[in-house]
Amino acid sequence: MKHLQILKSPVELSLNNYAMKGEPIINQVRLLKDVAGIFQNQEALTEMNTEATAYTVQAWLPVEDGTPGGLFFGASTIYPGKVGNEYFMTKGHFHSQSDRAEFYWGVQGKGMLILMDRDRNTWAEEVYPGSLHYIGGEIAHRLANTGNENLIVGACWPSDAGHDYDEIAVNGFSARLLAVDGKPNLSNI
Amino acid sequence: MKHLQILKSPVELSLNNYAMKGEPIINQVRLLKDVAGIFQNQEALTEMNTEATAYTVQAWLPVEDGTPGGLFFGASTIYPGKVGNEYFMTKGHFHSQSDRAEFYWGVQGKGMLILMDRDRNTWAEEVYPGSLHYIGGEIAHRLANTGNENLIVGACWPSDAGHDYDEIAVNGFSARLLAVDGKPNLSNI
Repeated sequence: MKHLQILKSPVELSLNNYAMKGEPIINQVRLLKDVAGIFQNQEALTEMNTEATAYTVQAWLPVEDGTPGGLFFGASTIYPGKVGNEYFMTKGHFHSQSDRAEFYWGVQGKGMLILMDRDRNTWAEEVYPGSLHYIGGEIAHRLANTGNENLIVGACWPSDAGHDYDEIAVNGFSARLLAVDGKPNLSNI
Repeated sequence: MKHLQILKSPVELSLNNYAMKGEPIINQVRLLKDVAGIFQNQEALTEMNTEATAYTVQAWLPVEDGTPGGLFFGASTIYPGKVGNEYFMTKGHFHSQSDRAEFYWGVQGKGMLILMDRDRNTWAEEVYPGSLHYIGGEIAHRLANTGNENLIVGACWPSDAGHDYDEIAVNGFSARLLAVDGKPNLSNI
Protein backbone atom coordinates (compact mmCIF):
# COMPACT_ATOMS: atom_id res chain seq x y z
CA MET A 1 0.00 0.00 0.00
CA LYS A 2 1.69 3.15 -1.25
CA HIS A 3 -0.75 5.70 0.19
CA LEU A 4 1.14 8.53 1.93
CA GLN A 5 4.55 6.97 1.24
CA ILE A 6 7.55 8.90 -0.06
CA LEU A 7 9.51 6.66 -2.43
CA LYS A 8 12.44 6.78 -4.80
CA SER A 9 12.09 5.98 -8.47
CA PRO A 10 13.94 2.74 -9.35
CA VAL A 11 15.96 4.52 -12.07
CA GLU A 12 18.50 7.33 -12.05
CA LEU A 13 20.38 9.12 -14.81
CA SER A 14 23.81 10.71 -14.62
CA LEU A 15 22.88 14.02 -16.23
CA ASN A 16 26.39 14.57 -17.66
CA ASN A 17 26.62 11.30 -19.62
CA TYR A 18 23.13 9.76 -19.31
CA ALA A 19 24.46 6.59 -17.71
CA MET A 20 21.27 4.89 -16.43
CA LYS A 21 21.35 3.10 -13.11
CA GLY A 22 18.78 0.85 -11.49
CA GLU A 23 17.47 -2.69 -11.48
CA PRO A 24 15.04 -2.29 -14.44
CA ILE A 25 17.69 -1.00 -16.89
CA ILE A 26 18.52 -3.11 -19.92
CA ASN A 27 21.91 -2.85 -21.60
CA GLN A 28 22.73 -3.62 -25.23
CA VAL A 29 26.19 -3.61 -26.78
CA ARG A 30 26.73 -3.62 -30.55
CA LEU A 31 30.22 -4.61 -31.61
CA LEU A 32 31.53 -3.54 -34.99
CA LYS A 33 31.13 -7.12 -36.23
CA ASP A 34 27.42 -7.05 -35.27
CA VAL A 35 26.77 -4.10 -37.57
CA ALA A 36 29.50 -4.67 -40.17
CA GLY A 37 26.97 -5.03 -43.00
CA ILE A 38 25.73 -1.44 -42.76
CA PHE A 39 29.03 0.08 -43.93
CA GLN A 40 29.99 0.74 -47.53
CA ASN A 41 33.69 -0.10 -47.42
CA GLN A 42 33.80 -3.79 -46.57
CA GLU A 43 37.48 -3.98 -47.47
CA ALA A 44 38.39 -1.39 -44.83
CA LEU A 45 36.62 -3.58 -42.27
CA THR A 46 39.03 -6.47 -42.90
CA GLU A 47 41.83 -4.30 -41.47
CA MET A 48 39.88 -3.32 -38.33
CA ASN A 49 39.29 -4.88 -34.93
CA THR A 50 35.65 -5.83 -35.35
CA GLU A 51 35.43 -6.91 -31.71
CA ALA A 52 35.50 -3.20 -30.80
CA THR A 53 32.30 -1.57 -29.58
CA ALA A 54 30.38 0.43 -32.19
CA TYR A 55 27.60 1.60 -29.86
CA THR A 56 25.69 0.82 -26.69
CA VAL A 57 22.07 1.38 -25.72
CA GLN A 58 20.59 1.57 -22.24
CA ALA A 59 16.83 1.69 -21.74
CA TRP A 60 14.06 1.62 -19.19
CA LEU A 61 10.98 -0.22 -20.48
CA PRO A 62 8.58 0.17 -17.55
CA VAL A 63 5.73 -1.58 -19.36
CA GLU A 64 5.61 -4.50 -21.76
CA ASP A 65 6.73 -3.87 -25.35
CA GLY A 66 3.59 -3.18 -27.38
CA THR A 67 1.56 -1.59 -24.57
CA PRO A 68 -0.60 1.24 -25.96
CA GLY A 69 -0.17 4.61 -24.25
CA GLY A 70 3.10 3.78 -22.45
CA LEU A 71 6.56 5.22 -23.02
CA PHE A 72 10.15 4.01 -23.02
CA PHE A 73 13.26 6.04 -22.17
CA GLY A 74 16.82 5.35 -23.23
CA ALA A 75 20.31 6.58 -23.99
CA SER A 76 22.55 5.63 -26.93
CA THR A 77 26.33 6.00 -26.93
CA ILE A 78 27.98 5.85 -30.35
CA TYR A 79 31.73 5.40 -30.22
CA PRO A 80 34.01 7.54 -32.41
CA GLY A 81 35.50 5.93 -35.48
CA LYS A 82 35.17 5.45 -39.21
CA VAL A 83 35.00 2.48 -41.57
CA GLY A 84 36.88 3.92 -44.51
CA ASN A 85 35.34 7.40 -44.78
CA GLU A 86 32.03 6.42 -43.19
CA TYR A 87 31.35 7.41 -39.59
CA PHE A 88 30.39 4.83 -36.96
CA MET A 89 26.60 4.73 -36.85
CA THR A 90 23.61 2.80 -35.57
CA LYS A 91 21.66 0.29 -37.67
CA GLY A 92 18.71 2.62 -38.05
CA HIS A 93 15.05 1.72 -38.18
CA PHE A 94 11.50 2.69 -38.94
CA HIS A 95 8.96 2.02 -36.20
CA SER A 96 6.82 -1.10 -36.71
CA GLN A 97 3.73 0.91 -35.82
CA SER A 98 5.00 3.38 -38.27
CA ASP A 99 3.08 6.53 -37.24
CA ARG A 100 4.91 6.47 -33.87
CA ALA A 101 7.27 9.38 -33.18
CA GLU A 102 10.42 9.67 -31.05
CA PHE A 103 12.40 12.44 -29.35
CA TYR A 104 16.21 12.43 -29.36
CA TRP A 105 18.38 15.01 -27.60
CA GLY A 106 22.14 15.46 -27.70
CA VAL A 107 23.89 15.11 -24.35
CA GLN A 108 27.59 14.82 -25.21
CA GLY A 109 29.77 14.75 -28.33
CA LYS A 110 29.02 15.62 -31.92
CA GLY A 111 27.16 13.79 -34.63
CA MET A 112 24.31 13.59 -37.09
CA LEU A 113 20.79 12.25 -36.91
CA ILE A 114 20.23 10.74 -40.36
CA LEU A 115 16.58 10.68 -41.40
CA MET A 116 14.79 9.09 -44.35
CA ASP A 117 11.14 9.30 -45.35
CA ARG A 118 9.10 6.62 -47.14
CA ASP A 119 9.96 8.20 -50.52
CA ARG A 120 13.61 7.57 -49.67
CA ASN A 121 14.56 11.22 -49.28
CA THR A 122 17.47 11.27 -46.81
CA TRP A 123 18.62 14.27 -44.79
CA ALA A 124 20.34 14.91 -41.48
CA GLU A 125 20.16 17.12 -38.39
CA GLU A 126 23.25 18.19 -36.46
CA VAL A 127 23.46 16.60 -33.02
CA TYR A 128 25.35 18.41 -30.22
CA PRO A 129 24.83 18.94 -26.49
CA GLY A 130 21.32 20.39 -26.14
CA SER A 131 20.09 19.77 -29.70
CA LEU A 132 16.51 18.47 -29.51
CA HIS A 133 15.13 16.38 -32.38
CA TYR A 134 11.56 15.40 -33.20
CA ILE A 135 11.39 12.31 -35.38
CA GLY A 136 7.88 12.12 -36.77
CA GLY A 137 6.10 8.93 -37.78
CA GLU A 138 7.14 7.23 -41.04
CA ILE A 139 10.71 8.53 -40.73
CA ALA A 140 13.63 6.09 -40.47
CA HIS A 141 16.38 7.30 -38.14
CA ARG A 142 19.99 6.49 -37.33
CA LEU A 143 22.76 8.25 -35.42
CA ALA A 144 26.33 8.76 -36.62
CA ASN A 145 29.28 9.99 -34.54
CA THR A 146 31.22 12.62 -36.49
CA GLY A 147 33.49 13.69 -33.59
CA ASN A 148 36.44 12.36 -31.63
CA GLU A 149 34.63 11.46 -28.39
CA ASN A 150 31.55 9.39 -27.58
CA LEU A 151 28.27 10.74 -28.94
CA ILE A 152 25.59 10.40 -26.25
CA VAL A 153 21.91 10.92 -27.07
CA GLY A 154 18.82 10.66 -24.86
CA ALA A 155 15.59 9.23 -26.27
CA CYS A 156 11.91 8.83 -25.43
CA TRP A 157 9.48 6.82 -27.58
CA PRO A 158 6.07 5.13 -27.34
CA SER A 159 5.96 1.61 -25.89
CA ASP A 160 3.91 0.43 -28.88
CA ALA A 161 6.29 1.85 -31.53
CA GLY A 162 8.33 -1.32 -32.08
CA HIS A 163 11.41 -1.46 -34.30
CA ASP A 164 11.39 -2.39 -37.96
CA TYR A 165 15.09 -3.03 -38.65
CA ASP A 166 14.42 -5.23 -41.70
CA GLU A 167 13.47 -2.51 -44.16
CA ILE A 168 16.81 -0.75 -43.52
CA ALA A 169 18.80 -3.99 -43.33
CA VAL A 170 17.53 -4.93 -46.80
CA ASN A 171 17.30 -1.59 -48.61
CA GLY A 172 19.50 0.68 -46.50
CA PHE A 173 19.22 4.46 -46.49
CA SER A 174 19.38 6.20 -49.88
CA ALA A 175 22.47 8.22 -48.88
CA ARG A 176 25.61 7.72 -46.82
CA LEU A 177 27.29 10.11 -44.39
CA LEU A 178 30.94 10.21 -45.41
CA ALA A 179 33.86 12.37 -44.36
CA VAL A 180 34.77 14.61 -47.30
CA ASP A 181 37.78 16.88 -46.66
CA GLY A 182 37.31 16.03 -42.98
CA LYS A 183 33.68 17.19 -42.87
CA PRO A 184 30.47 15.13 -42.86
CA ASN A 185 28.68 15.05 -46.18
CA LEU A 186 25.57 13.17 -47.33
CA SER A 187 26.01 11.57 -50.73
CA ASN A 188 23.73 9.43 -52.85
CA ILE A 189 24.57 5.77 -52.92
CA MET B 1 13.40 19.34 -50.98
CA LYS B 2 15.43 18.10 -48.04
CA HIS B 3 17.25 15.23 -49.76
CA LEU B 4 20.99 15.30 -48.91
CA GLN B 5 20.67 18.45 -46.81
CA ILE B 6 22.28 18.89 -43.41
CA LEU B 7 19.94 20.93 -41.20
CA LYS B 8 19.59 22.13 -37.64
CA SER B 9 16.64 21.22 -35.47
CA PRO B 10 14.50 24.30 -34.74
CA VAL B 11 14.76 23.70 -30.98
CA GLU B 12 17.64 23.68 -28.50
CA LEU B 13 17.84 22.97 -24.79
CA SER B 14 20.29 24.39 -22.28
CA LEU B 15 21.26 21.12 -20.66
CA ASN B 16 22.01 22.75 -17.29
CA ASN B 17 18.60 24.39 -16.79
CA TYR B 18 16.47 23.03 -19.67
CA ALA B 19 15.73 26.50 -21.00
CA MET B 20 14.20 25.78 -24.42
CA LYS B 21 15.04 28.06 -27.33
CA GLY B 22 13.56 28.19 -30.81
CA GLU B 23 10.63 29.57 -32.76
CA PRO B 24 8.21 26.67 -32.03
CA ILE B 25 8.54 26.91 -28.23
CA ILE B 26 5.48 27.88 -26.22
CA ASN B 27 5.81 29.56 -22.82
CA GLN B 28 3.32 29.46 -19.97
CA VAL B 29 3.59 31.37 -16.71
CA ARG B 30 1.44 30.53 -13.69
CA LEU B 31 1.32 33.26 -11.08
CA LEU B 32 0.45 32.43 -7.50
CA LYS B 33 -2.97 34.05 -8.02
CA ASP B 34 -3.64 31.74 -10.98
CA VAL B 35 -3.26 28.64 -8.81
CA ALA B 36 -4.29 30.09 -5.43
CA GLY B 37 -7.20 27.65 -5.08
CA ILE B 38 -4.99 24.56 -4.89
CA PHE B 39 -3.49 25.52 -1.51
CA GLN B 40 -4.92 24.61 1.88
CA ASN B 41 -4.11 27.76 3.82
CA GLN B 42 -6.13 30.48 2.11
CA GLU B 43 -5.50 32.88 4.98
CA ALA B 44 -1.73 32.68 4.48
CA LEU B 45 -2.30 33.67 0.85
CA THR B 46 -3.85 36.99 1.87
CA GLU B 47 -0.46 38.03 3.29
CA MET B 48 1.47 37.05 0.15
CA ASN B 49 2.30 38.72 -3.16
CA THR B 50 0.08 36.64 -5.42
CA GLU B 51 1.53 38.36 -8.51
CA ALA B 52 4.70 36.32 -7.92
CA THR B 53 5.45 33.43 -10.26
CA ALA B 54 4.55 29.97 -8.95
CA TYR B 55 5.81 28.02 -11.96
CA THR B 56 6.56 28.22 -15.66
CA VAL B 57 6.27 25.64 -18.43
CA GLN B 58 8.04 25.58 -21.78
CA ALA B 59 7.09 23.05 -24.42
CA TRP B 60 7.63 21.99 -28.00
CA LEU B 61 4.47 20.59 -29.58
CA PRO B 62 5.69 19.60 -33.05
CA VAL B 63 2.31 18.15 -34.08
CA GLU B 64 -1.26 19.18 -33.37
CA ASP B 65 -2.64 18.41 -29.92
CA GLY B 66 -4.53 15.11 -30.18
CA THR B 67 -2.40 13.57 -32.94
CA PRO B 68 -2.06 9.81 -32.39
CA GLY B 69 1.51 8.51 -32.27
CA GLY B 70 3.23 11.87 -31.79
CA LEU B 71 5.09 13.20 -28.76
CA PHE B 72 5.53 16.49 -26.92
CA PHE B 73 8.58 17.63 -24.95
CA GLY B 74 8.71 20.21 -22.19
CA ALA B 75 10.33 21.61 -19.09
CA SER B 76 8.66 22.84 -15.90
CA THR B 77 10.25 25.25 -13.43
CA ILE B 78 8.59 25.41 -10.02
CA TYR B 79 9.70 28.36 -7.93
CA PRO B 80 10.65 27.88 -4.28
CA GLY B 81 8.18 28.96 -1.63
CA LYS B 82 5.37 27.86 0.66
CA VAL B 83 1.78 28.88 1.29
CA GLY B 84 1.61 28.32 5.02
CA ASN B 85 3.34 24.95 5.38
CA GLU B 86 2.48 23.77 1.85
CA TYR B 87 5.15 23.81 -0.83
CA PHE B 88 4.64 25.64 -4.11
CA MET B 89 3.30 23.09 -6.59
CA THR B 90 1.69 22.65 -9.99
CA LYS B 91 -2.05 22.23 -10.50
CA GLY B 92 -1.73 18.55 -11.31
CA HIS B 93 -3.76 16.53 -13.78
CA PHE B 94 -4.82 13.18 -15.13
CA HIS B 95 -4.47 12.71 -18.88
CA SER B 96 -7.72 13.05 -20.84
CA GLN B 97 -6.89 9.89 -22.77
CA SER B 98 -6.21 8.41 -19.44
CA ASP B 99 -4.07 5.37 -20.35
CA ARG B 100 -1.38 7.76 -21.63
CA ALA B 101 1.93 7.78 -19.73
CA GLU B 102 4.59 10.47 -19.21
CA PHE B 103 8.27 10.62 -18.30
CA TYR B 104 9.61 13.27 -15.92
CA TRP B 105 13.26 13.71 -15.01
CA GLY B 106 14.86 15.99 -12.45
CA VAL B 107 17.32 18.53 -13.88
CA GLN B 108 17.91 21.02 -11.06
CA GLY B 109 16.71 21.59 -7.50
CA LYS B 110 14.82 19.38 -5.11
CA GLY B 111 11.19 18.36 -4.93
CA MET B 112 8.52 15.74 -5.00
CA LEU B 113 6.42 14.21 -7.75
CA ILE B 114 3.04 13.67 -6.12
CA LEU B 115 1.05 10.83 -7.66
CA MET B 116 -2.54 9.65 -7.17
CA ASP B 117 -4.31 6.64 -8.65
CA ARG B 118 -8.02 6.38 -9.51
CA ASP B 119 -8.73 4.88 -6.04
CA ARG B 120 -7.33 8.12 -4.58
CA ASN B 121 -4.19 6.56 -3.10
CA THR B 122 -1.60 9.34 -3.05
CA TRP B 123 2.16 8.86 -2.81
CA ALA B 124 5.29 10.72 -3.91
CA GLU B 125 8.67 10.16 -5.52
CA GLU B 126 11.73 12.24 -4.63
CA VAL B 127 12.84 14.52 -7.48
CA TYR B 128 16.50 15.56 -7.72
CA PRO B 129 19.01 16.04 -10.56
CA GLY B 130 18.99 12.77 -12.50
CA SER B 131 15.91 11.18 -10.93
CA LEU B 132 13.83 9.57 -13.71
CA HIS B 133 10.11 9.02 -13.19
CA TYR B 134 7.65 6.91 -15.13
CA ILE B 135 4.08 8.08 -14.67
CA GLY B 136 1.83 5.30 -15.91
CA GLY B 137 -1.65 5.79 -17.30
CA GLU B 138 -4.49 6.55 -14.89
CA ILE B 139 -2.12 8.32 -12.47
CA ALA B 140 -2.63 12.00 -11.63
CA HIS B 141 0.64 13.89 -11.20
CA ARG B 142 1.86 17.18 -9.80
CA LEU B 143 5.27 18.61 -8.87
CA ALA B 144 6.16 20.39 -5.62
CA ASN B 145 9.35 22.32 -4.89
CA THR B 146 10.68 21.38 -1.44
CA GLY B 147 14.02 23.19 -1.79
CA ASN B 148 15.35 26.74 -1.78
CA GLU B 149 16.12 27.08 -5.49
CA ASN B 150 14.07 26.51 -8.65
CA LEU B 151 12.99 22.93 -9.28
CA ILE B 152 13.47 22.14 -12.97
CA VAL B 153 12.02 18.99 -14.50
CA GLY B 154 12.11 17.68 -18.09
CA ALA B 155 9.08 15.89 -19.54
CA CYS B 156 8.01 13.85 -22.56
CA TRP B 157 4.41 12.76 -23.19
CA PRO B 158 2.17 11.54 -26.01
CA SER B 159 0.58 14.17 -28.24
CA ASP B 160 -2.83 12.54 -27.76
CA ALA B 161 -2.64 12.46 -23.93
CA GLY B 162 -4.46 15.73 -23.28
CA HIS B 163 -4.84 17.28 -19.83
CA ASP B 164 -7.77 16.68 -17.52
CA TYR B 165 -7.32 19.44 -14.93
CA ASP B 166 -10.98 19.43 -13.88
CA GLU B 167 -10.96 16.24 -11.84
CA ILE B 168 -8.15 17.63 -9.67
CA ALA B 169 -9.59 21.16 -9.60
CA VAL B 170 -12.86 19.77 -8.21
CA ASN B 171 -11.74 16.89 -5.99
CA GLY B 172 -8.06 17.63 -5.41
CA PHE B 173 -5.53 15.03 -4.36
CA SER B 174 -6.35 12.94 -1.28
CA ALA B 175 -3.21 14.13 0.55
CA ARG B 176 -1.16 17.29 0.89
CA LEU B 177 2.62 17.73 0.95
CA LEU B 178 3.34 19.87 3.98
CA ALA B 179 6.55 20.86 5.74
CA VAL B 180 6.61 19.12 9.13
CA ASP B 181 9.65 19.98 11.27
CA GLY B 182 11.19 21.37 8.07
CA LYS B 183 10.76 18.13 6.11
CA PRO B 184 8.20 17.21 3.44
CA ASN B 185 5.45 14.94 4.68
CA LEU B 186 2.31 13.62 2.96
CA SER B 187 -0.75 13.85 5.15
CA ASN B 188 -4.39 12.97 4.55
CA ILE B 189 -6.69 15.88 3.95
